[in-house]
Amino acid sequence: MSGTAQIGVTGLAVMGRNLARNFARNGYTVALHNRTVARTRELVEEFGDEGDFIATESAQDFVAALERPRRLVVMVKAGEATDAVIAEFAPLLETGDVIIDGGNAHFEDTRRRERELREQGIHFVGTGISGGEEGALEGPSIMPGGSEESYDSLGPMLEKISAKAKDGAPCVTHIGPDGAGHFVKMTHNGIEYADMQLIGEAYQLLRDVAGYSPAQIADIFRTWNTGRLDSYLIEITAEVLSHVDASTGEPFVDVVLDQAEQKGTGRWTVQIALDLGVPVSAIAEAVFARSVSGHADLRDASRHLTGPTARRLGADEAAAFADQVEQALYASKIVAYTQGFHEIAAGSERYDWNIDLGEVASIWRGGCIIRAAFLDRITSAYEARPRLPSLLADKSFAEEIAAAQGDWRTVIATAVTGGVPTPAFAATLAYYDSLRAERLPAALTQGQRDYFGAHTYHRTDREGTFHTLWGGDRTEVKS
Amino acid sequence: MSGTAQIGVTGLAVMGRNLARNFARNGYTVALHNRTVARTRELVEEFGDEGDFIATESAQDFVAALERPRRLVVMVKAGEATDAVIAEFAPLLETGDVIIDGGNAHFEDTRRRERELREQGIHFVGTGISGGEEGALEGPSIMPGGSEESYDSLGPMLEKISAKAKDGAPCVTHIGPDGAGHFVKMTHNGIEYADMQLIGEAYQLLRDVAGYSPAQIADIFRTWNTGRLDSYLIEITAEVLSHVDASTGEPFVDVVLDQAEQKGTGRWTVQIALDLGVPVSAIAEAVFARSVSGHADLRDASRHLTGPTARRLGADEAAAFADQVEQALYASKIVAYTQGFHEIAAGSERYDWNIDLGEVASIWRGGCIIRAAFLDRITSAYEARPRLPSLLADKSFAEEIAAAQGDWRTVIATAVTGGVPTPAFAATLAYYDSLRAERLPAALTQGQRDYFGAHTYHRTDREGTFHTLWGGDRTEVKS
Repeated sequence: MSGTAQIGVTGLAVMGRNLARNFARNGYTVALHNRTVARTRELVEEFGDEGDFIATESAQDFVAALERPRRLVVMVKAGEATDAVIAEFAPLLETGDVIIDGGNAHFEDTRRRERELREQGIHFVGTGISGGEEGALEGPSIMPGGSEESYDSLGPMLEKISAKAKDGAPCVTHIGPDGAGHFVKMTHNGIEYADMQLIGEAYQLLRDVAGYSPAQIADIFRTWNTGRLDSYLIEITAEVLSHVDASTGEPFVDVVLDQAEQKGTGRWTVQIALDLGVPVSAIAEAVFARSVSGHADLRDASRHLTGPTARRLGADEAAAFADQVEQALYASKIVAYTQGFHEIAAGSERYDWNIDLGEVASIWRGGCIIRAAFLDRITSAYEARPRLPSLLADKSFAEEIAAAQGDWRTVIATAVTGGVPTPAFAATLAYYDSLRAERLPAALTQGQRDYFGAHTYHRTDREGTFHTLWGGDRTEVKS
Repeated sequence: MSGTAQIGVTGLAVMGRNLARNFARNGYTVALHNRTVARTRELVEEFGDEGDFIATESAQDFVAALERPRRLVVMVKAGEATDAVIAEFAPLLETGDVIIDGGNAHFEDTRRRERELREQGIHFVGTGISGGEEGALEGPSIMPGGSEESYDSLGPMLEKISAKAKDGAPCVTHIGPDGAGHFVKMTHNGIEYADMQLIGEAYQLLRDVAGYSPAQIADIFRTWNTGRLDSYLIEITAEVLSHVDASTGEPFVDVVLDQAEQKGTGRWTVQIALDLGVPVSAIAEAVFARSVSGHADLRDASRHLTGPTARRLGADEAAAFADQVEQALYASKIVAYTQGFHEIAAGSERYDWNIDLGEVASIWRGGCIIRAAFLDRITSAYEARPRLPSLLADKSFAEEIAAAQGDWRTVIATAVTGGVPTPAFAATLAYYDSLRAERLPAALTQGQRDYFGAHTYHRTDREGTFHTLWGGDRTEVKS
């Protein structure tokens, strides 16, 4: 026996509810299920006229309402709740059915779940969904992992409900097997952290060095948004900065407590990068910046620390400085994305996912938080050279950084001497200079390690592993 | 039946062998055991005259050779090998016996093992041992975790074989319950990574900006080593830099391949810090710098990237610049240690370890890689204020940074404009400036998060959690 719903959604909190509505609005019959039945009823009462919903009250009824192969979207809290839902539904399913996990799962959990369910003949599709509440309803960027076969059945539906890029292309693609989708979503969020931190540092410089008001800075961001920085995050930065708090008449940004919160995907991105040996300093500094901001005790204990006060600029100088900050922001952004894409490439290699990096950039062009004109450029870079070792190896990005770097360096030096914290700006520049350095002090590090721990070293002039007898006559031995 | 050996060592690779000899040289009878019996025989043949060894050839004989309560030191590779050895010996032991794990275990593994063995009435003492091969033999810095009771029986022996600080104090203390010892050892290594990276950046600046030769830089480090930077790492840096490669006649540091390797404790330190919400940007940049250096492919693909060439200074300017680099190195070092001690404090709080931070600094004064005169200062800071929220809150460190910071900023600005990568210098300064900042762009971050994800925010002027209806009339609602 099978039902008529083409898709089912279980877990009807705001993300699940909006995704269900999105499917219904696109003409699909959607079975609904929620642990608390009231929520299911609410959805139908409020939005029942948007499409065909089948409200169900038990797991059995929910499964029975789905056409085969069944497609169930699970929209519950990542972690134990996801395992609990899987444990509840898996026994009711049959070979070929598909469970889609649309939560922010850790990709290692997704790998485990996919493996376990595969043994039962069930497809498990760990799926990154970006765009927040509004995206879920109006069209998110969707990053499904899992088997090719599951994408054959699921892809057309996802393409329908997904965001569309400016050229009309749906913002969804089959990312790769098992955990690939959630890995890419995690890295998306890590990049988002870096992007937001860089914007925050640019704002701080325009405020403290150029002396602009939030409203003036909003205008500057609006101008930037018409150029190469054109992106959702720049756009909403202008909105936030131009907003005036009704109760005080002050700029909104000045009445918000400056302690940033975080949920975990930024942290995961850095932790996994460390496991993969990928330097993601921009993302790390963004995560650290949020935790620094939240350590009210440390900050209180540090107010007495001395430092310079940034020199306020005159009007002409300020305008010129703003242009320089745009250059710095763009250069740092290129590096932040370079690091993020390096992590995806490394994950793909480690787990044999065969991820198409250009495709990833392409499906981030709409729906998701980091959507930006800039992503077209990344797609082009990978299309031109699919095995591009790094975005910085792309000629046009390299040229842009070459053109920006004078200002980039000036802006960071100004921050450093003026006492304005720019951890992510500085980290991206240091990464750039490290990569292009002819020689790095790593040679000294290896020498020290050999000295205190006999860890050995390699030489520039011949093959082999060597150790110097530091405690003896300092001859070199091959080891 | 019990034997006469006060201590046993199983796992007689170089660290285990040297530790066994250290115990024997200090008058203890040492039972020896190794999976491959040849190694046990070798030790006795080569070093049997150093003290009383009891060579054994089976686990049963080894255990029988120990007086009760038995004290077994396990010196095998961290991970599965440790579990295998525990599984082999635990069934042969009795209530009150003590297993000491002297490897570089992850503290979470140590917590698990301690819990499992405690149920059998066996004390498990996860112990950090720092100082490499030479330290193991001549006196390491020792960081034992585990029960108070185990330390009562073990402490006096460890105090005897440990390094001694200049004031004669043994470099060992009971760090705290279960995983505390391995956690502190891990963080020690993380700090070591940061310290080495900062030294590396200082070297690079002296080379590329001041134009000094490795031999000249060695002399500069020797001078620094007579002042507040007096430390083992500065001392060996001078040794490595002054060493000339015999086969080429070139400075040794120039013939070593500049790709740094790592074993994992630095990476763990950052990963755990992220879990604890502790910003450890100096350690993270040090770990990333090693991985950047090792990505030969990325570096090859980046040689074409343009950048300035650092301006070479004249002799007088160079000497003045070297003094500035010393100031920068010292200020950055204070921040790196601040971050490391913050991590220990956070771990202690999270796991209820009640770690005495001043004691930790104190037992690092001898034997270990980061031993330094500077650590006395940290001990004093915590003695003066045991609940010091941050080393930067200590008046005398704050004063030193205040005095150093002009040069600190100049050096980093010089690196930034000159194209010399100084990721850790820059990260420590950004941390300093972030902590002392009156306002951080985290307020903007919270505004953005509220805009795209309804993540809410707090206000500076009243309690509560708020959300602005960004998509609507932009009124504020309490949530």
